[in-house]
Amino acid sequence: MFSIFPIKGFIDQIDGFYCDGVSAGLKPNNKKDIGFIYSDTLCDVGAVLTNNKFQAAPLRHYQRYENDFKTNFVLINSKNANALTGEKGIEDINTIFSSLKFDITNPIMSSTGVIGNRLPIQKIVDGANTFDLSSKNGENLSQAIMTTDAYPKACLYEVKLEDGSSFKIGAVAKGAGMINPNLATMLCFICTDAKVSKKDIEEALNENKETTFNAISVDGDTSTNDTVLVLANGKSNAYDKEAFKEALKLVMHDMAMLMVADGEGAKKAVAFEVINAATKEDAITAAKALSNSLLVKTALFGEDPNFGRIASTIGASRIECDENSLVIAYNDVVVFNKGEIVFDAKCEEDAGKVLQNKEFKIVCDIGLGTESFIAYGCDLGYEYVKINADYRS
Amino acid sequence: MFSIFPIKGFIDQIDGFYCDGVSAGLKPNNKKDIGFIYSDTLCDVGAVLTNNKFQAAPLRHYQRYENDFKTNFVLINSKNANALTGEKGIEDINTIFSSLKFDITNPIMSSTGVIGNRLPIQKIVDGANTFDLSSKNGENLSQAIMTTDAYPKACLYEVKLEDGSSFKIGAVAKGAGMINPNLATMLCFICTDAKVSKKDIEEALNENKETTFNAISVDGDTSTNDTVLVLANGKSNAYDKEAFKEALKLVMHDMAMLMVADGEGAKKAVAFEVINAATKEDAITAAKALSNSLLVKTALFGEDPNFGRIASTIGASRIECDENSLVIAYNDVVVFNKGEIVFDAKCEEDAGKVLQNKEFKIVCDIGLGTESFIAYGCDLGYEYVKINADYRS
Repeated sequence: MFSIFPIKGFIDQIDGFYCDGVSAGLKPNNKKDIGFIYSDTLCDVGAVLTNNKFQAAPLRHYQRYENDFKTNFVLINSKNANALTGEKGIEDINTIFSSLKFDITNPIMSSTGVIGNRLPIQKIVDGANTFDLSSKNGENLSQAIMTTDAYPKACLYEVKLEDGSSFKIGAVAKGAGMINPNLATMLCFICTDAKVSKKDIEEALNENKETTFNAISVDGDTSTNDTVLVLANGKSNAYDKEAFKEALKLVMHDMAMLMVADGEGAKKAVAFEVINAATKEDAITAAKALSNSLLVKTALFGEDPNFGRIASTIGASRIECDENSLVIAYNDVVVFNKGEIVFDAKCEEDAGKVLQNKEFKIVCDIGLGTESFIAYGCDLGYEYVKINADYRS
Repeated sequence: MFSIFPIKGFIDQIDGFYCDGVSAGLKPNNKKDIGFIYSDTLCDVGAVLTNNKFQAAPLRHYQRYENDFKTNFVLINSKNANALTGEKGIEDINTIFSSLKFDITNPIMSSTGVIGNRLPIQKIVDGANTFDLSSKNGENLSQAIMTTDAYPKACLYEVKLEDGSSFKIGAVAKGAGMINPNLATMLCFICTDAKVSKKDIEEALNENKETTFNAISVDGDTSTNDTVLVLANGKSNAYDKEAFKEALKLVMHDMAMLMVADGEGAKKAVAFEVINAATKEDAITAAKALSNSLLVKTALFGEDPNFGRIASTIGASRIECDENSLVIAYNDVVVFNKGEIVFDAKCEEDAGKVLQNKEFKIVCDIGLGTESFIAYGCDLGYEYVKINADYRS
């Protein structure tokens, strides 16, 4: 038995962790653009990285450490992804770290922003050398790592174990844009003082990623920089495998939901729930197809209960399906029922009301089995186009 | 030896074919919304149909004819797709045909529009009974089948064979929206007086579809109603297998290009050319991923040479690739060259100029083999969102 409580604050509330964000001149108008996470003892590390074939330099730099390395420092910058920069991009990271005045061990870098530009090394070094490693300012950090995010993303939990011991776990993340089923342009930094091993961190990460980060989609693109990093300093001396898994799942779910709700220009967060599919793969395929369909997403933006597009998307996903067993509902408003169009004026009005909400679910009962999956997506409107038509400038 | 000449006019210029479009009250403001193609002799028929699992009623009606059936009549309506209507949707088609005053054989129906509504049978019957089967008005037909198309789509060719004989082949089509790599919400009706067999029609259709209709994408959705139909009345008595294949390819390519140029709200038609991939499948996967990427499409709309998104999309497509062998160019302006970022101010200016064109190509040289594929796509802007946020209304 264990219990998990959400608590106020940022990851800096966790014993031994420090963080802050400052302006290094990468973003205009003195906006914060670099930040750090520092631990006063060495941390075990676990990570999930993008499966994009052009992994950015910081991800390849990370993977050159030995498998069981420990670290006490993460440097994060926005505005420049340090991707497509080859071996020089990795050298740039080493140059930066060797120019810092701090005594740090196996430092990790993490970047987000435009692909295809070398890092402005001197600006980052100069900015980072102003860091105060005794700062506990999670809010500054969360602002420094934002790109097109509309708001900072963070969460924090306390986990109380049966023996009276407890540990904390929390995260800070950036999301928005390029979010898709195979991880996302998202950076998510999870810190904990649980006494958890690297092996258990990675097991829990892998177990939870499919139903959290890999279940969300903003636009179906997978970035070169996606990273979920877990740092565990063990300071609490508390640990329980199940409790840790559950708490990590909560943290990952929270961050994933914040990201989808803050998809570029998104006004609605929608759960696409596919139930009673013939196979698990079918359920996942259909749910993700729905969350990625432009026609579905624009209809959501228009608050139009155009269920034909939902059916068409399921049919186009090529899963096992049949009109005569298919049921489609907006929340509990059934609009199509096993071959029967039940979409009369009353039904249209009811469905339209559901679509006016900021959060709702679309349920597709395939009626051919028992497998289900929930994918999370958002609407797509003018703002998405605006943001992405001139992101570089 | 044979030669193919484009000629002016619509499919009504082909011997024995008649067509027209009228208003039956499905669209507002007396806009044309139903049309027909009639042949004064029976035609051999070949078709490619959508691979959406929820094929619309007209497609299932068509497939109930015996394999070698001949026809002389196609009835087409817009505004209602007759999809998701089950067996009743097929009965509705039979009711309509049995209520027409004309002497027609094995009539085919084809529909486009909103999914999930029963056809307004009486309106269609009343409208169709005003058809004049001796009309030759391809322009009216092409208008009647438009939905969100900005302009009618048609082409016509004359094919002169070595023995002095000749035949004509032409098409009328509707495209726009929901266009994607596995066929599209597109209806394309191809008529010819070549003396071609059903077997040869289907062979030529299948051979040409991958590099034409299946190579285009507007938004990655595959509709329930996609149809390419070929009617051959044999009246010219002329035929040559290679000439027919080549002419059919031209017709299909023309129609595919018109569709992609008229993607909903699209201002640019872009050829995504992936060359020197390790396998054909890699070339196709990467080219289609580019033509479907929202981040790439919005950058094109913004005329922003954001080549990082192109690289990221290739990497995310999981094909065999390596930064150090990758070359990216807008037309002939190279922006990334085998691991080297060559994107200086001059290069950015040159690339930006290419993006201001209405038509251009993006070339990605994977540098790991000899296989290539060209996918065709368009930009995505505010108009797409506008059109699709309130398509039903």
